Amino acid sequence: MKRISGRDNPHYKALKRLHESGRERRRSGHLLLDGMHLIAAHAAHGGIPEELLVSDSGLVRPEIAACLANHSAGTPITILSDALFAGLAQVDTPSGIIGVIVWPQPVHAIDHAADTVALDGIQDPGNVGSILRSAAAAGFRQVLLSADCAQAWSPKTLRAAMGAHFQLDLHEGSDLPSFLGAYRGQAVATSPTAPDSLYGLDLAAPVAWVFGSEGQGLHDSVLAVTRRQVRIPMPGASESLNVAAAAAVCLFETVRRRL
Amino acid sequence: MKRISGRDNPHYKALKRLHESGRERRRSGHLLLDGMHLIAAHAAHGGIPEELLVSDSGLVRPEIAACLANHSAGTPITILSDALFAGLAQVDTPSGIIGVIVWPQPVHAIDHAADTVALDGIQDPGNVGSILRSAAAAGFRQVLLSADCAQAWSPKTLRAAMGAHFQLDLHEGSDLPSFLGAYRGQAVATSPTAPDSLYGLDLAAPVAWVFGSEGQGLHDSVLAVTRRQVRIPMPGASESLNVAAAAAVCLFETVRRRL
Repeated sequence: MKRISGRDNPHYKALKRLHESGRERRRSGHLLLDGMHLIAAHAAHGGIPEELLVSDSGLVRPEIAACLANHSAGTPITILSDALFAGLAQVDTPSGIIGVIVWPQPVHAIDHAADTVALDGIQDPGNVGSILRSAAAAGFRQVLLSADCAQAWSPKTLRAAMGAHFQLDLHEGSDLPSFLGAYRGQAVATSPTAPDSLYGLDLAAPVAWVFGSEGQGLHDSVLAVTRRQVRIPMPGASESLNVAAAAAVCLFETVRRRL
Repeated sequence: MKRISGRDNPHYKALKRLHESGRERRRSGHLLLDGMHLIAAHAAHGGIPEELLVSDSGLVRPEIAACLANHSAGTPITILSDALFAGLAQVDTPSGIIGVIVWPQPVHAIDHAADTVALDGIQDPGNVGSILRSAAAAGFRQVLLSADCAQAWSPKTLRAAMGAHFQLDLHEGSDLPSFLGAYRGQAVATSPTAPDSLYGLDLAAPVAWVFGSEGQGLHDSVLAVTRRQVRIPMPGASESLNVAAAAAVCLFETVRRRL
């Protein structure tokens, strides 16, 4: 085991850039998984970290000690003081362990006939993460994200999705108009002013649910190739839901109809 | 119009405490509404701010100028530099206007026969806000929050709920075991291990949906008086949803069944 002793250590600086910068994650092709839950989800799908970072107080936690005892022999372990570790972590209660991994690639190529979740400019990483979690639970494997979405593999998105990433084929930077134009199922978006109700929609065939940005909704180019729009009936006085709440309603209505 | 000229101004210090401290909001009985959308939602329900705070760059925005032109004659307006305003605001793109209001009280007393959303120890203000927004849209007016929930009227919760607060009767610091024990409808929680499906549940009678904390679920004392548990069927490999996503699914399944 190596130890990083100070903030000026070049390896520490590189890790801090990975934590803070989406651009640096893209450039290097690496990212950080914060906490045992994400590291275990990655491992459950055959992933092996390039490196494990453990804080001094993490070392003495039983679940982390067990992970270190069973880890792949080829994976180096680096120890950090709690203060240095906190500089690489998201949360108020530090997890004590971070995995450095190679940016995962989708297992399957884009399929124009598969059930799909398409995210068009959703900017809040918590919303993207919650939608990924709902998609995985609802059995939607294919997720396309436009280039102006929050980064799917950012620390905040990873935290919100609770390991759902590893059950999904995530296609970031997707050209949604081109995908939806060639889609062989039904592309559907929600709109508060659509005349048709979600509950009257035929959901037997493959469906691509398209969800737009929190403030602006769908880009015109995406709207142009989204065949159907439906309204979620809202008996209350409000006219809108959080986008992750709307996505959960639509994805689980699809589940219900197919049971 | 008055102007606050520096951080040492006693009124500015008091406002900053209101922004930062839930305890101070409780003690003083005042809170801040950040942005025209919340101020308009408050006004639409008859609310009049005690004071309006406007930044220098807010003053020249048309929608804020219109609000100031129409505001109640009794409401003082205070101008702040953009830098001072930023110290009282949540967001990266400052709204330019904040209303100081008296902490709103629920319009109706607790009703043991009304449809209800009961939140038991939900700690993330974004989740609480998203659930309030879904409740208002689904036509659930009565919301009870246990004392260990995130504060319903915190800046982050207000921002996430997008004005839903003013359509709801929010009962913070509620004794959920006592309420649910005396509830004259059906109290229901979700559990991934429940044998019964959400989709088989009778939802005709008044229902109290009970949602528990992100990590720990329901307190034992709440579980003991929650009559039914149901499972949201999940064909994917994940076993769980974000609590606000689960709440949206349950609340809108109630809407669908009653259409």
